[in-house]
Amino acid sequence: MNGLPERVNICECWARDGLQGEDQFIPTEKKTAIINRMVDIGFKRIEATSFAHPKLIRQFSDSLEVLKGIKRPPDVTYIAIIPNDKGLDRLLEICQKGYGVQEITAILSASEDHLLANLERTFDEAMPPLADLVKRARQAGIKVIGCIGTAFGCPLAGEVPLEKIVELTDWYMDQGATSIMLGDTTGEANPRQVREVFGHMRDRFPRVDFVAHFHDTRGMGLANTLAALQEGIVLHDSSFGGMGGQPATRRPKYHKGFAGNTCTEDMVLMMEEMGIQTGLNIEEVIDTGLMAEEFCGRHLLGHVTRSGPVRHRSFRALSLQELRIHGEIAPALLFAGKMKEELSGQSLVGYVIREALAKNWPVPEDLNIVTDGIAMKGEFERRDILVTKFKVLAIEKSKGEALLEVLSQKANGDVFLEGQIKLVFPK
Amino acid sequence: MNGLPERVNICECWARDGLQGEDQFIPTEKKTAIINRMVDIGFKRIEATSFAHPKLIRQFSDSLEVLKGIKRPPDVTYIAIIPNDKGLDRLLEICQKGYGVQEITAILSASEDHLLANLERTFDEAMPPLADLVKRARQAGIKVIGCIGTAFGCPLAGEVPLEKIVELTDWYMDQGATSIMLGDTTGEANPRQVREVFGHMRDRFPRVDFVAHFHDTRGMGLANTLAALQEGIVLHDSSFGGMGGQPATRRPKYHKGFAGNTCTEDMVLMMEEMGIQTGLNIEEVIDTGLMAEEFCGRHLLGHVTRSGPVRHRSFRALSLQELRIHGEIAPALLFAGKMKEELSGQSLVGYVIREALAKNWPVPEDLNIVTDGIAMKGEFERRDILVTKFKVLAIEKSKGEALLEVLSQKANGDVFLEGQIKLVFPK
Repeated sequence: MNGLPERVNICECWARDGLQGEDQFIPTEKKTAIINRMVDIGFKRIEATSFAHPKLIRQFSDSLEVLKGIKRPPDVTYIAIIPNDKGLDRLLEICQKGYGVQEITAILSASEDHLLANLERTFDEAMPPLADLVKRARQAGIKVIGCIGTAFGCPLAGEVPLEKIVELTDWYMDQGATSIMLGDTTGEANPRQVREVFGHMRDRFPRVDFVAHFHDTRGMGLANTLAALQEGIVLHDSSFGGMGGQPATRRPKYHKGFAGNTCTEDMVLMMEEMGIQTGLNIEEVIDTGLMAEEFCGRHLLGHVTRSGPVRHRSFRALSLQELRIHGEIAPALLFAGKMKEELSGQSLVGYVIREALAKNWPVPEDLNIVTDGIAMKGEFERRDILVTKFKVLAIEKSKGEALLEVLSQKANGDVFLEGQIKLVFPK
Repeated sequence: MNGLPERVNICECWARDGLQGEDQFIPTEKKTAIINRMVDIGFKRIEATSFAHPKLIRQFSDSLEVLKGIKRPPDVTYIAIIPNDKGLDRLLEICQKGYGVQEITAILSASEDHLLANLERTFDEAMPPLADLVKRARQAGIKVIGCIGTAFGCPLAGEVPLEKIVELTDWYMDQGATSIMLGDTTGEANPRQVREVFGHMRDRFPRVDFVAHFHDTRGMGLANTLAALQEGIVLHDSSFGGMGGQPATRRPKYHKGFAGNTCTEDMVLMMEEMGIQTGLNIEEVIDTGLMAEEFCGRHLLGHVTRSGPVRHRSFRALSLQELRIHGEIAPALLFAGKMKEELSGQSLVGYVIREALAKNWPVPEDLNIVTDGIAMKGEFERRDILVTKFKVLAIEKSKGEALLEVLSQKANGDVFLEGQIKLVFPK
């Protein structure tokens, strides 16, 4: 696999592309809380907001407040999407107050039909003011990502010629853009095409930084990301929980479906598993994804959020947070394939938890396990399949305690152990 | 992209691996209906059932009836999983009655811990009877897929050494196996590893046919499939709706989560979009996936099932079936980016449907559109973003009619057209 980069730089797009199609208004303090958390766990590129007209997209009516509420470490690049001159005016005003962004995204589509649907402009109408917008931003010291939407095909116009992407890249760079985003706006790309397009563009523009921006509309988000990685692309866009909408439709309802961005949690895991450095810790990424789920009030589309990281390469301690996440703990986490000796109810549960978890997650040394009403039913032998299901009944955060229901079965389905256990976590 | 095969052979595993973790018993006639539909639409390899003990997995208590109820075209290979001698006895008995399978899957794990959990045997205990099983099957003229589970890592035992996979492949081939399946049983694989493992195995065993069997537990099913394709693998396993469970846990509950096989619908689309021939038509694959959803009584995990195939490369006519599938039709399917002239309510709706659909799906020439209570609200111009939402209110199959609710909006959100339309489909 030639070309795989050693490290990548993921731009987390949840606060903009992710929320764009979200019906409910996410309160400003929740937006800033997640962005600040992104900063804390190591994201260096964060799409913070949009300067679309607040009447068009109410979600971004608080763009100024969001930018005021977020941390400002020197090594983090904030990005805002700027659809037009008025948006830039608003941004530059904010910049003077010290709440600006380091980069903006300027928008074009590879397909004129999509451009009309999205910005209500033809190429001839869109490009002169956009050239002006890029120049003004650059004069204000702001970098510009030249976004080329529908770069891999357009549901309205069909195939997009590669020459059009070349032409628009040339044009953007002439205006002073500092990087080029190829957007698979509606999820039309496939991995062969991604390699061909990025391969061609890298050869044609060896000095240009390209951003890969895929939507997971047809489940190919990660496969397309892999293809982009194989062409050496280091700048990748993603969104927590795979959230995101297709901008040219005003009522996307896409969170119900599968049209969002490639999922951050899953992307980070894939890259880290491949030995590609993201600068992120998958456990912290999952926790932040769960925050996004909490704020949105529903399960989102991340796989890793449900399944957890690859067990045998994960080294975190069991925590109250962990129990909260899983609710009903997956048997795979907790069963032991063989038992070496017969144990009493209490010690058996302790044994199962310690034995099973020790293989993957070191349990805190001083975790205290208290059993309550555990009943042994029948015998078990060394070879039994021990399917122990733990359901979290209650968590008392102040005491550091969790109450779990336990149910253990033999291979034939016989329940041989049931009751409740209490885990007392070290303070 | 060297190594991409021109065509592949997908083994559809829904009726076995897919249903293995399903709590509800799917009636025999539904199992056979889907398998027969798979045959009709071009699947050449179908995993039909399991000979696990009916008491252990009730879902397969009807394995004989399933095998009796399915079509027998000469070019279709049916596969059954055979966990032990008794299973083989039952199969051979059925074979004599003419209801056999052409291939069986014999099971081993690369990790002894998993083998113990799954089959309650050590390597030393499992291999001699398995050697016997392979020989007996071969003597009866049945081909044998040597499955190596947890080939990419085991949640119990951790990393799996490549030498172990080589050793087990050597052993299987010595016993007379006809192909080797590398199973990512619990979704631990990543694309880099997949390329390394399959690359190594292809070099080491150039004459052996390898089967790629991935689970989508962590969202990497398609990315891993891509990696296997890049190593030239032509035999791929998948399951409708991404269904499937992890066999070593008796209560998988995996359909709630994301631990199933790589999704058939999404896999077929990716391959076809890449120009790799599957011998299947994505529309028919989606329809069959929807059948599976109907039988299971819930939405499954396919993306393409919701989003449909890539629009501008799809050429099917709008149909009643299509309307039924979508319920609320995605705006992307139906909006027109620009309007050329002002139209009255009825002709506008007709225009929108014809114009928008004509770009992707040719509407039947004689489709009749009857509007009812359509009210124009305000004006619209050439440049308006026309977000027209169609909700299917009723379908009268006998009359070939569908009643749709229509709602059209301008870019600013103003509703300018709402009411009901009737589509009368040609008989």
